[in-house]
Amino acid sequence: MKTEQVARELANSIGRNKVTTALEDLVCYSYDVSIYNHKPDIVVRAETKEDVINVMKIANRERIPVVPRGAATNNCGATVPINGGIVIDLVSMNKIREIDTENLIAVCEPGVILSDLKAEVAKVGLFYPPDPQGMDMCTIGGTIATDAGGPQAVKYGVTRNYVLGLETVLPTGELIKTGGKTMKDVSGYNLTQLLIGSEGTLGVFTEVTLRLLPMPEAKRTMMCVFNNLKDASVAVTRILNNKVIPSMLELLDKTSAQLIQKYMDVGYPTDAEAIVLIEVDGSKSEVDSQIIKVKEICCSCGAREIRLANTPEEAEAIWAGRKSGFAALAAYKPVVLPEDCTVPRNKLPEMMDKIQDIAKKYGVLIPTFGHVGDGNAHPHICYDPRNPDETESVKKIEDEIYMAALALGGTVSGEHGIGITKKRLMPLQHKESNLRLMAGIKKVFDPNNILNPGKAF
Amino acid sequence: MKTEQVARELANSIGRNKVTTALEDLVCYSYDVSIYNHKPDIVVRAETKEDVINVMKIANRERIPVVPRGAATNNCGATVPINGGIVIDLVSMNKIREIDTENLIAVCEPGVILSDLKAEVAKVGLFYPPDPQGMDMCTIGGTIATDAGGPQAVKYGVTRNYVLGLETVLPTGELIKTGGKTMKDVSGYNLTQLLIGSEGTLGVFTEVTLRLLPMPEAKRTMMCVFNNLKDASVAVTRILNNKVIPSMLELLDKTSAQLIQKYMDVGYPTDAEAIVLIEVDGSKSEVDSQIIKVKEICCSCGAREIRLANTPEEAEAIWAGRKSGFAALAAYKPVVLPEDCTVPRNKLPEMMDKIQDIAKKYGVLIPTFGHVGDGNAHPHICYDPRNPDETESVKKIEDEIYMAALALGGTVSGEHGIGITKKRLMPLQHKESNLRLMAGIKKVFDPNNILNPGKAF
Repeated sequence: MKTEQVARELANSIGRNKVTTALEDLVCYSYDVSIYNHKPDIVVRAETKEDVINVMKIANRERIPVVPRGAATNNCGATVPINGGIVIDLVSMNKIREIDTENLIAVCEPGVILSDLKAEVAKVGLFYPPDPQGMDMCTIGGTIATDAGGPQAVKYGVTRNYVLGLETVLPTGELIKTGGKTMKDVSGYNLTQLLIGSEGTLGVFTEVTLRLLPMPEAKRTMMCVFNNLKDASVAVTRILNNKVIPSMLELLDKTSAQLIQKYMDVGYPTDAEAIVLIEVDGSKSEVDSQIIKVKEICCSCGAREIRLANTPEEAEAIWAGRKSGFAALAAYKPVVLPEDCTVPRNKLPEMMDKIQDIAKKYGVLIPTFGHVGDGNAHPHICYDPRNPDETESVKKIEDEIYMAALALGGTVSGEHGIGITKKRLMPLQHKESNLRLMAGIKKVFDPNNILNPGKAF
Repeated sequence: MKTEQVARELANSIGRNKVTTALEDLVCYSYDVSIYNHKPDIVVRAETKEDVINVMKIANRERIPVVPRGAATNNCGATVPINGGIVIDLVSMNKIREIDTENLIAVCEPGVILSDLKAEVAKVGLFYPPDPQGMDMCTIGGTIATDAGGPQAVKYGVTRNYVLGLETVLPTGELIKTGGKTMKDVSGYNLTQLLIGSEGTLGVFTEVTLRLLPMPEAKRTMMCVFNNLKDASVAVTRILNNKVIPSMLELLDKTSAQLIQKYMDVGYPTDAEAIVLIEVDGSKSEVDSQIIKVKEICCSCGAREIRLANTPEEAEAIWAGRKSGFAALAAYKPVVLPEDCTVPRNKLPEMMDKIQDIAKKYGVLIPTFGHVGDGNAHPHICYDPRNPDETESVKKIEDEIYMAALALGGTVSGEHGIGITKKRLMPLQHKESNLRLMAGIKKVFDPNNILNPGKAF
């Protein structure tokens, strides 16, 4: 009844065509890429910031939970409306408002698909580096809400490093602007940086201002095969210490390589403990000299095989396996949980060993790939939900992985976020006083706890 | 009386030799580089994090204001104890605890002098980029509290981009740790990023974990002279659009060049509207090709003179004038206020014109130099406090400068901070709702408002 009344008021306020309570719509908005799902009561498809303001005002007055939603490609449950309420869909707010080639800045709405933005700025020789796996689907707003990273973070950093300004609707319906087109700003607490990575719990972005870079002139790719993880790790350290920061520095373990090869033949060896994929970028001359340096270092660190791509097609072939990693695992088991632990870079071999110990203990495969240059491992727990034994052990495996990561000075999430799936792990990483500060900040922004409640901490 | 009691308790708690109420000490801690000063009641020289914890617990219980202080090189009054109370001096906590060459990380205490850290990491081929003007005096803790930038920010970003973790004593005396040795962390709100730039109002840093880079192999310097600012600005845009990001990109206006030349002959022309100083860094081959590209661009944009340094000594000579800019101005007038406005980069010529209009209006010189690659101008208001007319107009000049910056989409502080001097300007840049959020956050961290109260907003 309350739902019907609220839906009617929303329809009157922002337009009938933007509000739905039809079951088939609610089902479509009940999930993300996590294993959780729960239907909302109402779905709103916002088209303007005024829509967002009006929705938040009504929801705040009525104390109805609101979940902001882009493409819902996150895998931690951050966009599942676990308390029902309103899902506010932002994908229709997908205009790129400006590509400012003088200031190297883009201004756009939150619903722009990341790869669309990347393609548009590339047309004028510019480059927006953040590159999470889901970039062909995920929205800019979502990448900011989760502070998304990706393979290129090793050289270019994560989303946080590219957001200059945000226009945000607070849970109370107030509109605030933070930052803007300036490259530096130290006027008061940095609310922009606080909003980044807050998983839609502090505000709904309605416009974002992003820093761009000139597009690198050239890039080259290489695959290096190692018989053990330690050698691969030493090679990575030596590359960085020798003044080369690759634009991508990825690692696949043996299990991953085997499953990928089973899925499609990309020429990965299936008997090596570590495959390292490396891309360098920069000017043509720089790239050529860097790739030679990288090759020499990998040889001196015991690489048993090096495949250097001489054409873009050859590079594409090397990356094809890494890119279809998730699909390969999905072909192996019906459910694949991409875990996400980051440890200090030199602890990664130890972390990988722990993961294999855990896999052995539970008698499962935990194929692991990830961003070796950042110490960011993605162990994948693959299981069949129809098998009660496998399902039973998933949480235990997760716990053991993150306890191992924390013991090595790591974090329970490097780039995926907390959402629902990692909430139980937060007190293991953060002291009670840290969590109290976070809760206090949440209350300052959202006194009635209506915006994506129950997420992140 | 209360002061005496508290001083006695502090002495008993952390050691008699670390606590003083002697007038000559209080005077020494009454000022920073701003025009403000006020004596504290007690000075504490902390040597350990336990000292800081004990001081904060006593101060919080007694509701006594505490100002954390590094080298007090900030020029916005952020370290002036305007309410008396306790100054907690952190310069004795100056140990570099670790330089981790495998993970490219430094861990140190807050009182380490910035240039000492830079020198130590350089010994093992590493590079800590933040480079504010006061780097030979200022402390790491202070640079984090103000999110310090410098000339190299155009390529390398500001302090914020290099802080991975903080150990912080809260105003209540609780010790928290945020972040650490991981390159990525998205577990909950990013308290590290919130603490950076909070001007000592949210906590006292007791240990910091910093990201390092490999030291660039080579660098080259060039001076370009332009007859007008617009040409210089176009040249800067074209350099960046042509895939060169210089490691420094500095601008001096005619008035600055004239005063610098009067102070010491560094060969700067005194009749040109804009002198642009450029440094590129990277591998040897990269640097050589980049400097040629930059030279061609500057020529095509109407540079009337280009001086390319062929040796480190020639480069040093070009930078000598810029580096002694402040000294040159101090020789011209007894008081020099280094203002700090950042506008979108392509608005800088307009900003510079406005500054000259204001200078003419008030019949004063406002020599301006700054970081043209970031749109960050430092107009300098020079005056003699014995001249009532000059003194009278200072605030008006400041207000007009920042109103102009804000009208161009700028900020009231790019890298110096707010402290006392800019507080009155905050409501011009930030809406009431933004300021309310900041005040709310302050209250979460510091319920009794004892840590550096009255600063920043």
